[in-house]
Amino acid sequence: MTQTTPVIALTLGDPGGIGPELVAKLLAEGEATQDCHTVLIGDRWLWQEGQRVAGVSLELPEVTSFREARDHAGPVFLEMDTVSRDQTAYAEANAAGGASVLAVLERCIEANKAGEVDGICFAPLNKYAMKLGGLGHEDELHWFVEKFGVTTFFSEFNTLGTLWTSRISSHIPLKEAHTYVTEDRIISAATLIYDTLKKAGFDAPRVGVAGFNPHGGEGGTCGREEVDIIAPAVEKCVAQGYPIVGPYPADTIFLKARDGDLDAVVTMFHDQGQIAIKMLGFDRGVTILGGLPVPVGSPAHGTAFDIAGQGKANLTPTRNASNLVKAMCQH
Amino acid sequence: MTQTTPVIALTLGDPGGIGPELVAKLLAEGEATQDCHTVLIGDRWLWQEGQRVAGVSLELPEVTSFREARDHAGPVFLEMDTVSRDQTAYAEANAAGGASVLAVLERCIEANKAGEVDGICFAPLNKYAMKLGGLGHEDELHWFVEKFGVTTFFSEFNTLGTLWTSRISSHIPLKEAHTYVTEDRIISAATLIYDTLKKAGFDAPRVGVAGFNPHGGEGGTCGREEVDIIAPAVEKCVAQGYPIVGPYPADTIFLKARDGDLDAVVTMFHDQGQIAIKMLGFDRGVTILGGLPVPVGSPAHGTAFDIAGQGKANLTPTRNASNLVKAMCQH
Repeated sequence: MTQTTPVIALTLGDPGGIGPELVAKLLAEGEATQDCHTVLIGDRWLWQEGQRVAGVSLELPEVTSFREARDHAGPVFLEMDTVSRDQTAYAEANAAGGASVLAVLERCIEANKAGEVDGICFAPLNKYAMKLGGLGHEDELHWFVEKFGVTTFFSEFNTLGTLWTSRISSHIPLKEAHTYVTEDRIISAATLIYDTLKKAGFDAPRVGVAGFNPHGGEGGTCGREEVDIIAPAVEKCVAQGYPIVGPYPADTIFLKARDGDLDAVVTMFHDQGQIAIKMLGFDRGVTILGGLPVPVGSPAHGTAFDIAGQGKANLTPTRNASNLVKAMCQH
Repeated sequence: MTQTTPVIALTLGDPGGIGPELVAKLLAEGEATQDCHTVLIGDRWLWQEGQRVAGVSLELPEVTSFREARDHAGPVFLEMDTVSRDQTAYAEANAAGGASVLAVLERCIEANKAGEVDGICFAPLNKYAMKLGGLGHEDELHWFVEKFGVTTFFSEFNTLGTLWTSRISSHIPLKEAHTYVTEDRIISAATLIYDTLKKAGFDAPRVGVAGFNPHGGEGGTCGREEVDIIAPAVEKCVAQGYPIVGPYPADTIFLKARDGDLDAVVTMFHDQGQIAIKMLGFDRGVTILGGLPVPVGSPAHGTAFDIAGQGKANLTPTRNASNLVKAMCQH
């Protein structure tokens, strides 16, 4: 995306969750801030609290705008005042915390629009708190889409680094999922994840499309979506020059992926991909918001209220998210 | 089921598949025939072919009826003449092979009704061949159900030994799956798998019920089946004295199961359980036909036409199926 060393905005996430301590561990480790300019953005007390819980102490140079990031070789701290300590508590989803998350992310978005930020990595947020705090959208992806004025296809991607998934529908009642199985959505999802994998460093991404019905519809005798919609959509991708394959039955396509025969699976509804990817390694997962004009990523897990503030959260997904956003800025 | 040493019927499966060679390996190994009277039933040439491929040679005493099984300590062979060698070929699903499978299984069923057989373990069959050969049902389970005159709930169970799954619908178009989400079906499926686990040797089975919608419906905002149907069904199970738990979101309930917190998961549609159980260990799976008056089991895989006749098929699922049917006869 950028020819120069990228500037990456890093947020602390929901104040009641494990985000601040993970960010402190991440910055103390150092890997995340190599080959990029990292701007940690958020409330000072929360950053200090994260360090306390993580058992680390870091003196980051302070800046007052994203523009100053390039003046420093290492990571910098950009203070915002969005929430006070007494408005929040560990393991609590509340309006003040949710509004804080939205305010920080909004500033990152504005900085990207102004050409000052090349990628965004956010620590775990809490959808319920964000809705209490003013989010009027189904989820953060739809909010980002509105903020960026995206009018083309978008999709959350989940990845374990080697294996990616996208889906043509998300948080909707399952009985409505079949109405989302359209040629347009499948073609858009398959080509978007293909292009995204190219950006993430895959030279020749291998993208497969899952079926919708048991056993892939058994030739149309057990549901017709594969025959009438999915297979024609795959053919049209191929005709457009995208080497997409499928449809394969949903209960075996992830075995192909696990065994290294596919880099990405386009799923037909939420739980197809989520069941598989959580079985393959919930503790490594990263979420990428696909279809935005800027790489945006996050660890795939939530705020983990049950262990927040205890310093024992697993850093791996956050490290993977940070590395992936950085890689996507560099390709 | 039986107070004395059980008699177990063992079949060779579809002639074009890996069944005969697996049965030959199983009997050569010996574990399957301990603590039971095994009656291998099928065509003589096919049994010889299985031994040839497996590279073993066994001299089983011959009997002319199941009744004679108890006269022998070890396994015996009961010949049937259902198909000739030149009517079949490896890697071919055809009517003669399918009709052979049906004829052998029908004789096992009749022997059970006559009190001569306590359990049935069948090698892989091919649904398409069986349909060519006269099967007028959706699958073999529905055929067994008719043969036994079952009028109560029945369900295929898939198990990896430690983890079991059942489902309230099976080979139907996914867009119709929500019509199967009823209190009656969930209560029947949950209590049947609980009772089956007791028979399989679990003293206090821990059975969980999966949700239907993404994130378990998010409190009714993303689908209402959990609130309106599944949770009340679980409550009614508990009221009947069954310690069933759930509903849990489908993309995390299998993590609980994998980590040993559940013995069985009742799924709301085919691929929920199939994606998870195949990810957990496709090469170990066993299928039990639940709800029949007799334990009936099989390896969960198919005829594996791509490797049939080569002697390299994995014996583990067949061994597990045999052991499980035996265990279910003894409890």
